[in-house]
Amino acid sequence: MRAAVMRNKKLVVDTVPDPTPSDGEVLVKTLACGICGSDLHALKFADQMVETARESGAPFSLDVGRDVVMGHEFCCEVVDFGPNNYTTLKAGERVVSMPLIFRNGAMQAVGYSNDVPGGYGELMTLSGAMLLAVPNGLATEYAAMTEPMAVGLHAVNKARLEAHDAPLVIGCGPVGLAVIAALKLKGSEPIVAADYSPKRRALAQKMGAHVVVDPAQQPTFEAYRQAADLRPSVIFECVGVPGMLQQILRQAPLGARIVVAGVCMEPDTIKPALGINKELNIQFVLGYTPDEFAATLRHLSEGAIDVAPLVTGKVGVAEVPQAFETLANPEAHAKIIVEPWR
Amino acid sequence: MRAAVMRNKKLVVDTVPDPTPSDGEVLVKTLACGICGSDLHALKFADQMVETARESGAPFSLDVGRDVVMGHEFCCEVVDFGPNNYTTLKAGERVVSMPLIFRNGAMQAVGYSNDVPGGYGELMTLSGAMLLAVPNGLATEYAAMTEPMAVGLHAVNKARLEAHDAPLVIGCGPVGLAVIAALKLKGSEPIVAADYSPKRRALAQKMGAHVVVDPAQQPTFEAYRQAADLRPSVIFECVGVPGMLQQILRQAPLGARIVVAGVCMEPDTIKPALGINKELNIQFVLGYTPDEFAATLRHLSEGAIDVAPLVTGKVGVAEVPQAFETLANPEAHAKIIVEPWR
Repeated sequence: MRAAVMRNKKLVVDTVPDPTPSDGEVLVKTLACGICGSDLHALKFADQMVETARESGAPFSLDVGRDVVMGHEFCCEVVDFGPNNYTTLKAGERVVSMPLIFRNGAMQAVGYSNDVPGGYGELMTLSGAMLLAVPNGLATEYAAMTEPMAVGLHAVNKARLEAHDAPLVIGCGPVGLAVIAALKLKGSEPIVAADYSPKRRALAQKMGAHVVVDPAQQPTFEAYRQAADLRPSVIFECVGVPGMLQQILRQAPLGARIVVAGVCMEPDTIKPALGINKELNIQFVLGYTPDEFAATLRHLSEGAIDVAPLVTGKVGVAEVPQAFETLANPEAHAKIIVEPWR
Repeated sequence: MRAAVMRNKKLVVDTVPDPTPSDGEVLVKTLACGICGSDLHALKFADQMVETARESGAPFSLDVGRDVVMGHEFCCEVVDFGPNNYTTLKAGERVVSMPLIFRNGAMQAVGYSNDVPGGYGELMTLSGAMLLAVPNGLATEYAAMTEPMAVGLHAVNKARLEAHDAPLVIGCGPVGLAVIAALKLKGSEPIVAADYSPKRRALAQKMGAHVVVDPAQQPTFEAYRQAADLRPSVIFECVGVPGMLQQILRQAPLGARIVVAGVCMEPDTIKPALGINKELNIQFVLGYTPDEFAATLRHLSEGAIDVAPLVTGKVGVAEVPQAFETLANPEAHAKIIVEPWR
């Protein structure tokens, strides 16, 4: 099959072997797969990512010297079934899945595995037990947004928001926008969002931000204080570059809770005494629970979250390397969807 | 009066002016005042402390170029009253107070102020409204332990412990020991505590630790995992030196909550990706609430917490500089009490 492949820390397009479904697995055609910022990160920080996963005791490993077909935000069509399959789904049905597959008693991260391909290729194998049928009528490209939007719901759930908390979302890339959508769903008000990009600020408003801040025009925390008044602060860090956390520790109001959803792969320096003086709380978050993933699919299918504004481009497999470059410009795109059968 | 004075970042013993009680203030004799690790820190990191306080927006300032009489863990005897005093306390009564004084509409930190002396001198002025009478029978030196023990109660309260959480206390200096005492009061079990010092480990057991670990003999987290089994992890960082937080991020189990009670005055480097991969939570804590301070005095007076093992020495004002040196050796002392009228 044709696929965009991470090979020697570069992205190339090549023909790779078709995957074969093992016990309990389902062979699927990849209809749509979003390009995630984590994949751009992975390409740049492949070694650190593997080292940190190992240091964290994560139960999967990756050999960056071997091919990886990335892509973990997918919507697929059922094609065929491996042995010992108990799913009631039929060939032709559209499905989504958390990007995890259980094979030989171990868990693999679909999209970050040497053994199973992710969504930047024409075919995938998924665990039958993990599949969720796409409710009728939800467009394939929006169903593929289940995964990134679930990240936002999880971050908001981990924030333990209370009635009068005032959220501030720093960074309006796909993670920040997903957080804004989840905050809107929860009824938070006012939602304040900051990003240097006019395009991203416009998207933040479409997803539900009540106040958007251009940090080049007004200091983010000044605008935030005006909007939040004396409400308790919950700050979502959705940028993920070194220095952000310290900037937030320095400027956060007394007692603020900081939810770190931006993935900073490099070591970072903070002043703990600032955290102590202000009794700050930092909650690091990752991924979502199966319940949150399913709830997000429901939110999308019921129109509670409208992701149409976020899908700003579609490409075939051959154009994936170019799309990775394009995504570096926040004015051009939010989410680019790969359609391998395009 | 005679006092130990921080002068040009050195500790000297000198005669300084007697304090005079302003509006609403009470003149007291300092009967006992504990030497706190924060004071050792303050002497070493005076400039950073002031800079960080300013950066945090803290409402008090300190000029390290001017004299400071430190000491904020005190028990005193009422001597005289300033104008406009509404306290019902009488001369001769013993009192404790949170180390805060309201003067000219501003808040001053007693023990870190250029304008009011702390407990390393013979006399102090305190806000009448802040005084708590020492319940009959509680020894003066133990009443002076209200402040440091309240720090432990606050840290434990901020940890939001649930029924089956397993606490790990890293560092058994006065802060760690106060945390252990508060955990015991809460009924936590097992309480695991780690320190390189045999003396400190023995004190940890006396204060309520069920398992003590010598990190030189067995890795702390290995011993902790054995004791905690699969219970959720709550880790109290009570050391406060650079590198500790990263060590904990690296070794903490999935989903652990880290309560940072150790005050690290220097910049510190962490790997946020470890926090993300394991969804860790960091709660920085400082001080206590008035309720927690009063509750701690009650705990001490009712014998719910026995601080007798912690008071390992008593000195007069003249010996304070020497006591600061002595405290660097964890085998020699836990808490040294200054008795200015000794």
